[in-house]
Amino acid sequence: MALLEDLETAADGQRTALDAVLNALPYNEQGLVAGIAQDADTGAVLMLGWMDRTAIERTLADGYATYYSRSRKTYWRKGETSGHLQALVSLRFDCDGDALLLSVRQTGPACHTNRSTCFYLRVEDDQVVVDPV
Amino acid sequence: MALLEDLETAADGQRTALDAVLNALPYNEQGLVAGIAQDADTGAVLMLGWMDRTAIERTLADGYATYYSRSRKTYWRKGETSGHLQALVSLRFDCDGDALLLSVRQTGPACHTNRSTCFYLRVEDDQVVVDPV
Repeated sequence: MALLEDLETAADGQRTALDAVLNALPYNEQGLVAGIAQDADTGAVLMLGWMDRTAIERTLADGYATYYSRSRKTYWRKGETSGHLQALVSLRFDCDGDALLLSVRQTGPACHTNRSTCFYLRVEDDQVVVDPV
Repeated sequence: MALLEDLETAADGQRTALDAVLNALPYNEQGLVAGIAQDADTGAVLMLGWMDRTAIERTLADGYATYYSRSRKTYWRKGETSGHLQALVSLRFDCDGDALLLSVRQTGPACHTNRSTCFYLRVEDDQVVVDPV
């Protein structure tokens, strides 16, 4: 965490080796951090997936988002079977390194339910409504 | 998870009790799910915080975002000391319930570093750049 704490007060434009940042991330007990996918054009938040260091490195090398499936205990290149790929536009880390923001160009719907975003369950008073998205 | 799986194929507009959804969320070993705060006006993703059931209920009752601090093991109403509150516009769950999307009106900077967003560390080739945000 020391590196990330140092960067909290760093001047705009300061550069650090990616490898050092990847080493400094506070991966959870499962070795994962949260990856938020946001549509680069509309700004819509599409989904949250989980990433370990390998998933981050594959995403950066490949230019398409790869996550780690906790249930299937395997990597999944988003859209590998559905064709609903996420082309990476930029990748950012947050201040404490437990979350990544992937700006992406999404092919087709982001959600496996074929909705445009995974966030279709909206709270309305004491109910949850399935929202058209 | 059964309830959330049922909702995957629910028609737009279908309603479910909030209490049942809160019971069905797949809280992690620490009892938490991820809360993504997005600026309701600009669409900017501001931060990711962690929430347990109590934090979600406080946020909904209060109309301002409350998260759970894993390091301090306590609730924190975002901006309670800094004044940088997040007024809740809407709250959504994702398809598998491990992530929430809070649309908020942010007072002041969202990040404790006084930057507008926590996602100021941008990957550029094999380096990470402190981005003006």
